[in-house]
Amino acid sequence: MIDLARIRGLLSERQSGYTLPQPFYVDPDLFAFDMKAIFETSWLMVGFDIELPSVGSYISINVGRSPIIILRDRDGRIRGFFNSCRHRGAQICKPGVGTARRLVCPYHQWTYDLDGKLVFAKDMQESFDPTQHSLRPIHVEVVAGSIYICLADNPPPFEEFKTALAPLLAPHDIANSKIAYEATLVEKANWKLVMENARECYHCSACHPELAVTFPVESTAYFEDEDDSLGKFQARMKAFDLPVGPVGGAWWQAMRFPLKGDCVSVTANGSSAVTKPMCAIADGNVGSLRWALEPHSFAHAVGDYLFMFSAMPTAPEETVVTAKWLVHKDAVEGVDYTIENLTAVWNATNLEDRALAENNQLGVNSIGYVPGPYNEVPEELVLRFTDWYCSKADAYLEKYLKT
Amino acid sequence: MIDLARIRGLLSERQSGYTLPQPFYVDPDLFAFDMKAIFETSWLMVGFDIELPSVGSYISINVGRSPIIILRDRDGRIRGFFNSCRHRGAQICKPGVGTARRLVCPYHQWTYDLDGKLVFAKDMQESFDPTQHSLRPIHVEVVAGSIYICLADNPPPFEEFKTALAPLLAPHDIANSKIAYEATLVEKANWKLVMENARECYHCSACHPELAVTFPVESTAYFEDEDDSLGKFQARMKAFDLPVGPVGGAWWQAMRFPLKGDCVSVTANGSSAVTKPMCAIADGNVGSLRWALEPHSFAHAVGDYLFMFSAMPTAPEETVVTAKWLVHKDAVEGVDYTIENLTAVWNATNLEDRALAENNQLGVNSIGYVPGPYNEVPEELVLRFTDWYCSKADAYLEKYLKT
Amino acid sequence: MIDLARIRGLLSERQSGYTLPQPFYVDPDLFAFDMKAIFETSWLMVGFDIELPSVGSYISINVGRSPIIILRDRDGRIRGFFNSCRHRGAQICKPGVGTARRLVCPYHQWTYDLDGKLVFAKDMQESFDPTQHSLRPIHVEVVAGSIYICLADNPPPFEEFKTALAPLLAPHDIANSKIAYEATLVEKANWKLVMENARECYHCSACHPELAVTFPVESTAYFEDEDDSLGKFQARMKAFDLPVGPVGGAWWQAMRFPLKGDCVSVTANGSSAVTKPMCAIADGNVGSLRWALEPHSFAHAVGDYLFMFSAMPTAPEETVVTAKWLVHKDAVEGVDYTIENLTAVWNATNLEDRALAENNQLGVNSIGYVPGPYNEVPEELVLRFTDWYCSKADAYLEKYLKT
Repeated sequence: MIDLARIRGLLSERQSGYTLPQPFYVDPDLFAFDMKAIFETSWLMVGFDIELPSVGSYISINVGRSPIIILRDRDGRIRGFFNSCRHRGAQICKPGVGTARRLVCPYHQWTYDLDGKLVFAKDMQESFDPTQHSLRPIHVEVVAGSIYICLADNPPPFEEFKTALAPLLAPHDIANSKIAYEATLVEKANWKLVMENARECYHCSACHPELAVTFPVESTAYFEDEDDSLGKFQARMKAFDLPVGPVGGAWWQAMRFPLKGDCVSVTANGSSAVTKPMCAIADGNVGSLRWALEPHSFAHAVGDYLFMFSAMPTAPEETVVTAKWLVHKDAVEGVDYTIENLTAVWNATNLEDRALAENNQLGVNSIGYVPGPYNEVPEELVLRFTDWYCSKADAYLEKYLKT
Repeated sequence: MIDLARIRGLLSERQSGYTLPQPFYVDPDLFAFDMKAIFETSWLMVGFDIELPSVGSYISINVGRSPIIILRDRDGRIRGFFNSCRHRGAQICKPGVGTARRLVCPYHQWTYDLDGKLVFAKDMQESFDPTQHSLRPIHVEVVAGSIYICLADNPPPFEEFKTALAPLLAPHDIANSKIAYEATLVEKANWKLVMENARECYHCSACHPELAVTFPVESTAYFEDEDDSLGKFQARMKAFDLPVGPVGGAWWQAMRFPLKGDCVSVTANGSSAVTKPMCAIADGNVGSLRWALEPHSFAHAVGDYLFMFSAMPTAPEETVVTAKWLVHKDAVEGVDYTIENLTAVWNATNLEDRALAENNQLGVNSIGYVPGPYNEVPEELVLRFTDWYCSKADAYLEKYLKT
Repeated sequence: MIDLARIRGLLSERQSGYTLPQPFYVDPDLFAFDMKAIFETSWLMVGFDIELPSVGSYISINVGRSPIIILRDRDGRIRGFFNSCRHRGAQICKPGVGTARRLVCPYHQWTYDLDGKLVFAKDMQESFDPTQHSLRPIHVEVVAGSIYICLADNPPPFEEFKTALAPLLAPHDIANSKIAYEATLVEKANWKLVMENARECYHCSACHPELAVTFPVESTAYFEDEDDSLGKFQARMKAFDLPVGPVGGAWWQAMRFPLKGDCVSVTANGSSAVTKPMCAIADGNVGSLRWALEPHSFAHAVGDYLFMFSAMPTAPEETVVTAKWLVHKDAVEGVDYTIENLTAVWNATNLEDRALAENNQLGVNSIGYVPGPYNEVPEELVLRFTDWYCSKADAYLEKYLKT
């Protein structure tokens, strides 16, 4: 039982422009609240349609403690379901990817078609109505090959995001890509500390030497700098008819921005990691398309690969980060690219960020912690994240807290 | 502080014939409630009198987080005590078995006689009254060699169970048996999921290939099938004057039932695992005597061995399962039986059941979980278990929830 | 949200002369209460000024979940701060010791001078006032080379303790000592069980064979025995002008007492472990100076070394014990002493005490636990500890529980 009145009180203590009061980062009740008020009501980026190559292909993941199946049905449409049998609740598919003609619960072999309908339940009594026991569906959307889910009955509007992201992402041709690598990190930090860290580069020049080679770590949150390299980049992109943004809404932003100097990719030295580009326009020298969703994810598409980052809370002070790297489907490992070179920068960055988030948690746990001020320019997107979190929390309280 | 009013509310949400609402399987408060309302008020099967061969023999086990000692006193009577020193509460005997002339606390050597009386407390002040500091006793009963305890001050009536089980179990001659093997499994699942799994064979044909060789996995909960093999078996047992049941009460059931085809034991191939039977009647071809106690245990006595299963909750999503195998005391390991052959089927079954219960937990954790309908025939005893749980919970609330 | 009214109720159940009711040893709310009511309001012994040899030397430790820095500033003064950056709360110094000209947060390089003032915060907006973002100071006191901190805004009076301890401790010349060894133990027991164990020797003769060689384990809490060895010892000390106490206040005691027989140090055989004594008076044959602070520490200074013990709660059933051994700064390891010989007795004793405290916890967890009576003589200081705890808890409730 979450004490919503208490949470309203804590929320009212938050000072604009400052980090959150301590309980938001440490308290089990706040964690339970976040799962309900944030993760069960928001659109979440979960992967790419090329991960579901054929009828019956599925991805099984967890949103918090909820197992989820995303699959391709017999009509080729991507659908999502709660991965919990309608008989006694068992998890149907283990986490990971696979292919199944039908979804068979490993416990008592209740069997669901790919549209979620229960088609077999051994020896059930006559009064049992299988049509009332389909898998519970969740909302799924696909934008230029990237997949989004929402667990809410009534998800937030999606159309504006889709319309805005599609033309930016389409040139990266996810349809002709493949997963080159996937990594998972368990971070001993509240998911909001993980995400605050992921929303700013105020720490990058000192903490991410690998990333700082190619990434404009000294630019503003919207990638402006003193040399107007953004303006020059945008002019160059225009010549190729490549849209650049920025576009954005309450829970998302997207824009294409220039890498440092002559860099064409986010790699150890700025040169391409993959000889077959995903986006062949301008010889793949297209800067980086960044898009990000509150509460949990971002992605960067450079000319030769695409990197996605997703953070899933698992406990008040534990978050699981999943990272995926996509390359052109015809690029051959060992010939056109190596995993080591492809993943070097973001792998190093993720490990450094884990250490930073965990160290942040240790200090936030202190009775000496008091909320501190964000830096208005380099931490602009952190502030956006925190403000969005507070307004989302407020909306939930408005709806569910009887007064 | 458990919020009993909330639990009453959750209990009232439960729909008859369906699994329980989610909090019953995941919530720490419900776990605390279960310990009080169920485990501290029920009879629990803990072992066998042959585990206590002489004066001072003891078994030290845990019921939840409560260490318990069961011992044989100087009169040969079996007694039970809370295994917690009356001085500063230390655990007196470590878990396991042993023999002691007196129980000496390892902390300050306070010493108790086998009847629980404090007989030595070094240098205590004159005002100290040792007679007020005996070990706190618990209730113990023995039925045909099997031992039961209850932690409640006023246990439920035991006589009916004892009277009914004794003639069924006596032919298995526990007095002339020994422990051949003992195994412990930690299962990451709520104890009720472990027990629901243990109360049905709806999953057996698909999930327990080893057990399905000998066990009538397609029969009803009361071992009826289409061929009336139960009726023929009962007639055969009658010829040997062997009672078969079924008998049962609110918290227990017992009956003797036939194994599959010509099988005489629950082993990999249906033949005996032990050349010296525990029950020599009918050449040991006596089917299996199953008895089961809500909330936590069951046992199967076949001609050549006896298998006992006990589940003890340790956390909302953790349960410790203890299994024991008994054989005739004169059966020699390596000559009359091997541990591997004796334990193969139930060991495999227990490991498979652990995987099932843990997978069940993962799906029940989901926000997508909704209670589902039991199958009326093969899950009849699960429904009995769940109904019994709810009525026991209700009785506790009736007693302790001030309205 | 701690339910203070409930805690008041539990406190009122406590019977004088008896151990505490169960929730005080196991309940997460009581743990949170203890951190606030006890550890954030008491003086804690944390180490020695010789651990901070030069300007910028620091010790980074945890009090519960609060990281703390103790350092030597530019004026040579020892100061303490909450080790949590005023920006986003990150831990600034990792646990351990080190030296820094300034304290630089590893996250965004906010930089603090050794007096806690923020001297650098990269690119902050003009409206930002660095003078409002100094590190939050904590209270620090030093007595004859030993360091004490208090996290409260208004610490308890310290002067009486300082005045009383200084002349007793000064002859041990901490200024000319060094840390010879440091050990950390994680104990799976509530901190109060760890401390109750540390406040009595009722268990020593049976449980600490190594300590019992030299330590007067059969004496009273104030080291009186039947032979008046205390009186003879005090007369001998008087001849050397060495004060002996006992002195004491509500939260501390100190006295010098004789070791057993001819023993001159607490070692395996009673002879010195270090050839260069810390206290050269009487050839280092000065018994042992014991001082102890509620809630968490004690120390013993014998002629040749000084041993300190500190217990820090980390969870309801977890406590971290830190032990330090000091020797004369000119004593050379391998020549004047060996670590093995120096630490043998207290290391063995600490490990034995861990087993005792953990076993005590197991029994206290039981529903069969009921508070038991302390032994008035050998457990006098345990009773003092428990009484102090209750009165401290009561004072907190008096202040914060609105009625």
